[in-house]
Amino acid sequence: MGEVPHVITAAPFTAVNMEPVFFRAQELRKLRTEDEGRLNNKREMAQAYVGRQAVNLFYQESTRTRISFELAEAAWGMGKSTTTEARKFSSASKGETLAHTVNVVEQYDPDVMVLRYDFVGGAAEAASLVKVPILNAGDGPGEHPTQAFGDSLTILEQLGRLDNLRITFMGDLRFGRTIRSLVYILSKCQNNHFDFVSTPDLSLSEDIKELLDSLPGITYKEHDHVSALTEVLPETDVFYVTRTQTNQGAPVLLNNQFRVTRATADLLPQHAILLHPMPIDRSDPSRSEIAPEVDEHPRARFYRQAGNCFYARMAILERIMEGKPVLEQAA
Amino acid sequence: MGEVPHVITAAPFTAVNMEPVFFRAQELRKLRTEDEGRLNNKREMAQAYVGRQAVNLFYQESTRTRISFELAEAAWGMGKSTTTEARKFSSASKGETLAHTVNVVEQYDPDVMVLRYDFVGGAAEAASLVKVPILNAGDGPGEHPTQAFGDSLTILEQLGRLDNLRITFMGDLRFGRTIRSLVYILSKCQNNHFDFVSTPDLSLSEDIKELLDSLPGITYKEHDHVSALTEVLPETDVFYVTRTQTNQGAPVLLNNQFRVTRATADLLPQHAILLHPMPIDRSDPSRSEIAPEVDEHPRARFYRQAGNCFYARMAILERIMEGKPVLEQAA
Amino acid sequence: MGEVPHVITAAPFTAVNMEPVFFRAQELRKLRTEDEGRLNNKREMAQAYVGRQAVNLFYQESTRTRISFELAEAAWGMGKSTTTEARKFSSASKGETLAHTVNVVEQYDPDVMVLRYDFVGGAAEAASLVKVPILNAGDGPGEHPTQAFGDSLTILEQLGRLDNLRITFMGDLRFGRTIRSLVYILSKCQNNHFDFVSTPDLSLSEDIKELLDSLPGITYKEHDHVSALTEVLPETDVFYVTRTQTNQGAPVLLNNQFRVTRATADLLPQHAILLHPMPIDRSDPSRSEIAPEVDEHPRARFYRQAGNCFYARMAILERIMEGKPVLEQAA
Repeated sequence: MGEVPHVITAAPFTAVNMEPVFFRAQELRKLRTEDEGRLNNKREMAQAYVGRQAVNLFYQESTRTRISFELAEAAWGMGKSTTTEARKFSSASKGETLAHTVNVVEQYDPDVMVLRYDFVGGAAEAASLVKVPILNAGDGPGEHPTQAFGDSLTILEQLGRLDNLRITFMGDLRFGRTIRSLVYILSKCQNNHFDFVSTPDLSLSEDIKELLDSLPGITYKEHDHVSALTEVLPETDVFYVTRTQTNQGAPVLLNNQFRVTRATADLLPQHAILLHPMPIDRSDPSRSEIAPEVDEHPRARFYRQAGNCFYARMAILERIMEGKPVLEQAA
Repeated sequence: MGEVPHVITAAPFTAVNMEPVFFRAQELRKLRTEDEGRLNNKREMAQAYVGRQAVNLFYQESTRTRISFELAEAAWGMGKSTTTEARKFSSASKGETLAHTVNVVEQYDPDVMVLRYDFVGGAAEAASLVKVPILNAGDGPGEHPTQAFGDSLTILEQLGRLDNLRITFMGDLRFGRTIRSLVYILSKCQNNHFDFVSTPDLSLSEDIKELLDSLPGITYKEHDHVSALTEVLPETDVFYVTRTQTNQGAPVLLNNQFRVTRATADLLPQHAILLHPMPIDRSDPSRSEIAPEVDEHPRARFYRQAGNCFYARMAILERIMEGKPVLEQAA
Repeated sequence: MGEVPHVITAAPFTAVNMEPVFFRAQELRKLRTEDEGRLNNKREMAQAYVGRQAVNLFYQESTRTRISFELAEAAWGMGKSTTTEARKFSSASKGETLAHTVNVVEQYDPDVMVLRYDFVGGAAEAASLVKVPILNAGDGPGEHPTQAFGDSLTILEQLGRLDNLRITFMGDLRFGRTIRSLVYILSKCQNNHFDFVSTPDLSLSEDIKELLDSLPGITYKEHDHVSALTEVLPETDVFYVTRTQTNQGAPVLLNNQFRVTRATADLLPQHAILLHPMPIDRSDPSRSEIAPEVDEHPRARFYRQAGNCFYARMAILERIMEGKPVLEQAA
């Protein structure tokens, strides 16, 4: 059988070893939404893993990740039990440790555990304790590797490649776990250039900069003022924006210059795509990192990106249920 | 294929176009509870829509509506993902708009979305954005059309007709969304008379009164004192009572005169029925809008009414899964 | 047909009438985890009760009980709807009574209701009102009979018997519902001796002492100081420890003498087992009733115990779905 196929970090992900998931995710989308026999396909998929079970443990609020995992599990016919707001309302509120919780849940013989934790390292700790495959669904400001599958699939699908790209990241680069996971992937592809736009308080972590410094063929530049966008966006292929991760400990809000208006999005070339892992904060639309009018902008691919995360999760679950490693192994 | 079969408002509901759902709901009840082969029937139903999926988004607390929809979905073999308390614990708490949430969820290819929202118009907004059928499970003080299916089915089942009735509504008539939806239906049936009993602060909205004024054959009378009950209840066929909708913005509590005691219920004729969409507020039993001893009163049909809402929801889901309009279309 | 197979209290449980559940639980564990065809077995089990439905109503937070019931239901192919934190977020927060809630839920024709309630007697009240089998999943400081199934199964499995045992209970003996349920069982087996170690504020309830006093062949001793452990543990077969049930009304915390360190556990004989219903409170590890190093102690059987609760719940649900009484009936 080999090792347990945990998915904890995007660090080992490459364009090559992610390929089977990319391929299958695109196929699943077609089979479920475009194919003439789509309703039949959905029925057949829901008979695939009847009797297999998932436990979804969410210590932090989640909409996209939880709903898409729950629907992916149900789409394969799996049973499930989900804990939301585990920090507030589960035995964690009675002082139970993560270790005890996952050790107990393992006793119920689930086939996979999806874990969102509120501190870095939660998924890694769980994976060190149990033999059930752990899928990291976000560990505080740490990582979000299944999102990175969907993000990189969207780039591949829309631009045809993961290398030779100019990618501009803007927003909370320090506490945004999706950025860390995606940079791990794109930094291993040939000839990519990154522009990082943020305030000093929310700028890229030192360890990521050290990683990038160590990689030949990768270039990057940090910018602490939005005026840089005028220069970099016309050359950008992928513009990836995030909100301030106040719930992960970000100490300041980005000021309302670090936002995408129609004028900003118009700076992008025709072939470029604008991504955002969502949610987009609209509590004050005039400060939102994505101005409302940008939702309909021809560069925006937020929704497609969200859909790709769902199909990537279906593909990942399928490989786990089949006992296959999630990443293609070198021959 | 035609239009997406959203269910947003009871405004277009009529005794005629609701008939297929009424009929099927009653049949489903028999097949699931009375038939000798009931366990087999339940098994067969649970094989009907395997692979189809529902997303239940609840921005406000719910017991009856959420549980009955979840069980109706499972009864048809559908998969599901449910968000409860979305306002507090989902990405809505990070400032995400309803539009973003439903647009994202649509990407996961669900077959239906059940939406309870905390403001009027939530379901209509969602339906304007997505192609997935939206079922309005309550939009603030707006409407609750699937409840109206169950309420009117109960009247039809118990009294044999939806016309030529005298219906007395008592309670919070302004913020009670079930009343609005039910009045839309009953006002289109011939020769119905309404009595509305409430305090001025919670009396019927102007727009409903204007609607009733415009309809020939419909009569109604407003009463701002419970003493009117002595006069109207002996002539009443359907007595429909609600609690004060403090969670929908009702500014005052009904004083404890606007309640049904045994003596009140005894005023009803033998054939009459007492309905309440529940929950009944018993935090202070001596002020409860339904006095505890009335639960067992021979006129009370609360529980039957709740059951009919479940079977109506099963029937509605079935039509949606079959691609049929929920309302029978004119030939 | 006969009586509805509610499971409300462990009072009628005996080593004999629990036997079929014990046997089946052990068999289910083997079929699902050890058997070569385990994945096939899981698939077959998930086809057993397709179309049957469970409603899980949890008025208090729960991790183990809720997840294990949800997974047990799904493992049998049942549909389900679960309410968590019902006290805060369901219609209970609008003043609805338990009676109204369960009477309404019965209308949706579920095949079983699992109820965790925050006051003693919740499950008994529900069982007095509805014909759907009620499983008591904890009623405040009252009882937790399905946990008692798993606890006694663990003793039987690990020690080969439920009689002729010396059992030491330590912790919150008054508000710990699992202790009450387990004492009911073990006090009916021949020749058991109990040692109860606690502070006076959290010592055994009078009614249990009266019960024990009335039973010939049962002996017990109360100890109000941990120094007693030096004397009793070397003779103990089962050491059962609980945390202070602050959420059930325990007025004081056990001071940090009433805890198991490695030295304490080392006092146990080689064949003895250390049980805890979990969660173990680690909010302050230096005060935790089970010191962290004890998790790996060779006497500890917490996780096995949790697993046995899951398989016992599967066996109980199976009997209910088959229309069999949960307890073997005298011939």
